[in-house]
Amino acid sequence: MTTADNTATATGASPVVPTRGPRRGASVGEVRWDATSFWGTRIRTNAENTFDHCVAWMERLGWLENFDRVASGEETVDRPGWQFSDSEVYKLLEGLAWEMAREPNDALTGIYDGLVARVAAAQDEDGYLGTAFGHPGLPQRYSDMSMGHELYNMGHLIQAGVARLRTYGEDTLTRVATRAADHICREFGQDGRQTLCGHPEIEVALAEFARATGDDRYLEQARLFVDRRGRGTLPVRVLLAADYFQDDVPVRDAEALRGHAVRALYLSAGAVDVAVETEDAELLDVLQQQWVRTVERRTYITGGMGSRHQDEGFGEDWELPPDRAYCETCAGVASIMFAWRLYLATGQARHIDLIERTLFNVIATAQAPDGRAFFYANPLQLRTAPEAAVREEVNMRAEGGTRAPWFDVSCCPTNMARTLASIETYAAAVKHDVASVLLYGAGDIRVEIAGATLALRVDTAYPREGEVTLTVTEAPDTQIAVRLRVPQWAEGATGTTPDGVTQSVAGGWWDVRRVFTPGDTIVLSIPVEPRFSWPDPRIDAVRGTVAVERGPFVLCLEQTDLPAQIALENVSIDPAAPPRASDDGAVVRGAAISRPHVPTGRVPYDGALQASASHEAGQDIQLVPYHRWSEREPGTMRVFLPVALPTA
Amino acid sequence: MTTADNTATATGASPVVPTRGPRRGASVGEVRWDATSFWGTRIRTNAENTFDHCVAWMERLGWLENFDRVASGEETVDRPGWQFSDSEVYKLLEGLAWEMAREPNDALTGIYDGLVARVAAAQDEDGYLGTAFGHPGLPQRYSDMSMGHELYNMGHLIQAGVARLRTYGEDTLTRVATRAADHICREFGQDGRQTLCGHPEIEVALAEFARATGDDRYLEQARLFVDRRGRGTLPVRVLLAADYFQDDVPVRDAEALRGHAVRALYLSAGAVDVAVETEDAELLDVLQQQWVRTVERRTYITGGMGSRHQDEGFGEDWELPPDRAYCETCAGVASIMFAWRLYLATGQARHIDLIERTLFNVIATAQAPDGRAFFYANPLQLRTAPEAAVREEVNMRAEGGTRAPWFDVSCCPTNMARTLASIETYAAAVKHDVASVLLYGAGDIRVEIAGATLALRVDTAYPREGEVTLTVTEAPDTQIAVRLRVPQWAEGATGTTPDGVTQSVAGGWWDVRRVFTPGDTIVLSIPVEPRFSWPDPRIDAVRGTVAVERGPFVLCLEQTDLPAQIALENVSIDPAAPPRASDDGAVVRGAAISRPHVPTGRVPYDGALQASASHEAGQDIQLVPYHRWSEREPGTMRVFLPVALPTA
Repeated sequence: MTTADNTATATGASPVVPTRGPRRGASVGEVRWDATSFWGTRIRTNAENTFDHCVAWMERLGWLENFDRVASGEETVDRPGWQFSDSEVYKLLEGLAWEMAREPNDALTGIYDGLVARVAAAQDEDGYLGTAFGHPGLPQRYSDMSMGHELYNMGHLIQAGVARLRTYGEDTLTRVATRAADHICREFGQDGRQTLCGHPEIEVALAEFARATGDDRYLEQARLFVDRRGRGTLPVRVLLAADYFQDDVPVRDAEALRGHAVRALYLSAGAVDVAVETEDAELLDVLQQQWVRTVERRTYITGGMGSRHQDEGFGEDWELPPDRAYCETCAGVASIMFAWRLYLATGQARHIDLIERTLFNVIATAQAPDGRAFFYANPLQLRTAPEAAVREEVNMRAEGGTRAPWFDVSCCPTNMARTLASIETYAAAVKHDVASVLLYGAGDIRVEIAGATLALRVDTAYPREGEVTLTVTEAPDTQIAVRLRVPQWAEGATGTTPDGVTQSVAGGWWDVRRVFTPGDTIVLSIPVEPRFSWPDPRIDAVRGTVAVERGPFVLCLEQTDLPAQIALENVSIDPAAPPRASDDGAVVRGAAISRPHVPTGRVPYDGALQASASHEAGQDIQLVPYHRWSEREPGTMRVFLPVALPTA
Repeated sequence: MTTADNTATATGASPVVPTRGPRRGASVGEVRWDATSFWGTRIRTNAENTFDHCVAWMERLGWLENFDRVASGEETVDRPGWQFSDSEVYKLLEGLAWEMAREPNDALTGIYDGLVARVAAAQDEDGYLGTAFGHPGLPQRYSDMSMGHELYNMGHLIQAGVARLRTYGEDTLTRVATRAADHICREFGQDGRQTLCGHPEIEVALAEFARATGDDRYLEQARLFVDRRGRGTLPVRVLLAADYFQDDVPVRDAEALRGHAVRALYLSAGAVDVAVETEDAELLDVLQQQWVRTVERRTYITGGMGSRHQDEGFGEDWELPPDRAYCETCAGVASIMFAWRLYLATGQARHIDLIERTLFNVIATAQAPDGRAFFYANPLQLRTAPEAAVREEVNMRAEGGTRAPWFDVSCCPTNMARTLASIETYAAAVKHDVASVLLYGAGDIRVEIAGATLALRVDTAYPREGEVTLTVTEAPDTQIAVRLRVPQWAEGATGTTPDGVTQSVAGGWWDVRRVFTPGDTIVLSIPVEPRFSWPDPRIDAVRGTVAVERGPFVLCLEQTDLPAQIALENVSIDPAAPPRASDDGAVVRGAAISRPHVPTGRVPYDGALQASASHEAGQDIQLVPYHRWSEREPGTMRVFLPVALPTA
């Protein structure tokens, strides 16, 4: 076992470090957002509150004690938690590893050491680690590959090991992860059990573990798992068909992501890793096509994915209902994982566009300001006002319009924790002599490039305001390029080079190439005025509506911003009056729909039911960023706003 | 045990025979639709094909052998079928009982006798009957009240017993049913187990058994079950919350139907029976209000109920997506059961309006013309063309756009069988000296009224054509009224009395009162020209669309009726051009939507994405009755047709 060996990259303390291809993302510490910036605030809250919060819940529910019981050999009776509860501990360990590297913290180190000791004690001699199978009172190991989640759990363990290897080096956790990975290779290798795990995750974990350790056995095992998928191996049952697990069609043959969204996205991320490391251009191309089709036809305006509560799954093309949108928080995390890997492999701005959209509208939405409550699902419309938020109980359902402290299936809080702890690594990248700034926030960037250091101070109130000023504080003495991402929606953006020349810049990349000297400034001005966004007319569920976006924020209308006498369900807005900026939201012109009276007890379809709305007598309707919904009070909400209907 | 004793009614051979209140529905044989009429054809197909078909599948899958094994005392290993598979046998027995009374048939009698013998042999000494619990190799009786379906199964057994009692009298089946009902009263009575069955059905069964036997113990037990519900008695688990079972809110306190649709509707039907028999006006009023709210806000234009695949459940108010509409066939059956009981209790035409809507658009849709394949779910839009229909395998999923011969959960085929065998009893009713004709079809009506016989010959091509001629062939010599239902949608309907006077008649009831003599004719002319039906603007999922109805038929557009170069998803219709009749469907003016081009790999929401359609250059688009969809070939379909969108 060696510590991280990433010869292909200058540094390598980030979640994804390809050994093939010239592009690398920022390492922990290379981008530091100010604590007062949009994401800096959230990162700090994560460190201060969320880790503690998650540990307390896992202790309270007995999910940690599960490890102790296995370690002691005691028989398990009525094990608390789902088969995948171990993974929450591992995701938290991954997050702790990143956060401890960002900012050393004795309290977090104490938590980390305590958790690692309990986890390590539960590992079997042969490397197997799991508290739901294979011990007294539990089912046999690998007796339920469809839903047992054993490899899924160990995959998260291995990802935690990767984080620790890259930020610290070998320790107890990395040794535990190595033994688990070795066990899996022995058990499921070319000559081992010819099966796979119902929930993908082990693929992406093993591929990265190969990168982190330099040991290609793990990559080969990841490749085997990717190739085995889609051949109907997993036992199915009613309500769990093969497409739920992506075991219906081989990865190479699929046209779009389908089935359970988190499963599909984790699998895709792992498959990109395999494609990149094995230089399988055909596989990479297929995955890119699947991503394009999925983004174009199966993705919400928030970046959210997963249209169905049933199966927590993708719907068909254009099946994007706002009210029953599932848009699981973990699917947002997984979508970022997939898109980030495609970006590293191809260098396309569109992948970062989606990541930004998802960050500001799914990730930012999923967490309460105090970091102690979460959305599991992120619908785009709530029709019935929920009761007051309950902060003291496990939420049994992944819906309801209020953030909950913990869930019965509680994958999202710990996924948020590890994502927020590593989010800065998505903000910049380096390829040869090009340093790309991908996400904008006030803070400092310091990357190794062309054998020297490029340091940039970023001053901006983005995304609330659109001007981003980059000041060079340290630079190589050779020519390099600073590449800035211009979001596709940023019509009318301009860029000003260090010599004061302002030019218009189109969506995509804007390169400023020169020998930089400290004091040089680059200014990117992105118009963040509110704008109407019309849905593709094939999205039946939102026909006759329009959304309002402002910069990267999707806006929404909450009942709490309407006069008491106007119900949200009756509001229609005037598309002839462009939205105007207001605070960090917007104001549109709206009116209340009036409906003809119909007799009672009849179905709501009728020759006379066409509604009308008088926008001439309209009034201002206040919209706020979607990520803030349900923060002030639980209530009804909608992103897509009805416009006046055509009359016959 | 006595045979049917329905002193309050002249006859009583129909599924619902209240002992309180003056109104009774037609008995089997009182209405006979011609074999060539819309429903007559289906009734005949049911008798000739469907019973056979169901028995063959239940034999093939081992669902019948389950009874034999219990009877023999043999240990059960890997019992085939769900916990509720017994109920399919009982529903088929109920259907056989009605059909054998309609039209004696030796083959069906043979099937009936064979099934009854096998069922009877499996009954325990104490009256318990069930093949999934309480025998060697099976879980203990009543060990899973939430999902065990034991009382649900026995409820269907008892309903079969009711049908047999009323059409034949005491026999082996009715004795078996009586022992089961007695067992349940002992086991779950006032001093017995204080619990209830996760799937309502026993309530409606026991209430009717009390009516059929005159024994009020059964009614009291039904009342207990209704009152126990909604108090959080049933153990819940993830994805099975209390509202799924209607165990969240007492029946008297609920505002609308919610949770699993079939459960909610069976429960409501049973609660009406209890309210009527115990003269509980308050409960009846609450149920009526729940029905109104449900019809007005949670019902599809087809009459279908159940907006969610998740939980097979009702959605919230206005949550009525056409694509993910569940509209389970059994929910259609159950909705008719609920509405029919409310009609008998209150005499309101709106209940029959809903029954007619449901019959022509859910029940007629659910069955293939050969009576050997069925829809489980009845969505109002299919976006992706299914593969060719598979007629030889069990369908594991309740969706897909093709009728299947049998399902893993196969509640619908046998529910169709019992409904079609008794459907004529919903077509007429008698109250004192008023004979109501509720549903129109060519055939003969012969009812006892005012101590004499009223016989009517009905000549009509309804619903294809709107003229209905009733000719009196036998009549009492006293004054009576013939009451005709005028559907609410029938604007411009006229009625012609026996003396040749034609008058316009409004939606609701039209009474013709006189001393009739043979040869008298009454003509009701119902306009069945195609018409636009606009959805209430609060139904977000179909905003900007319009449906077309023709008479009681909802129409739909199938890809197969479009030129090959026009994809269904691109069609928009012109609301300024009224639909014109064509065959039994309609023609509307349509055009293909054109969309601006957008770059690839972007989410489908954009400032430029508004679509336009040129209806001036429109072409004829053919619509067909929804009940015929997927009969010619599997393909995409939609009921709600997009209209031109407003442009900013």
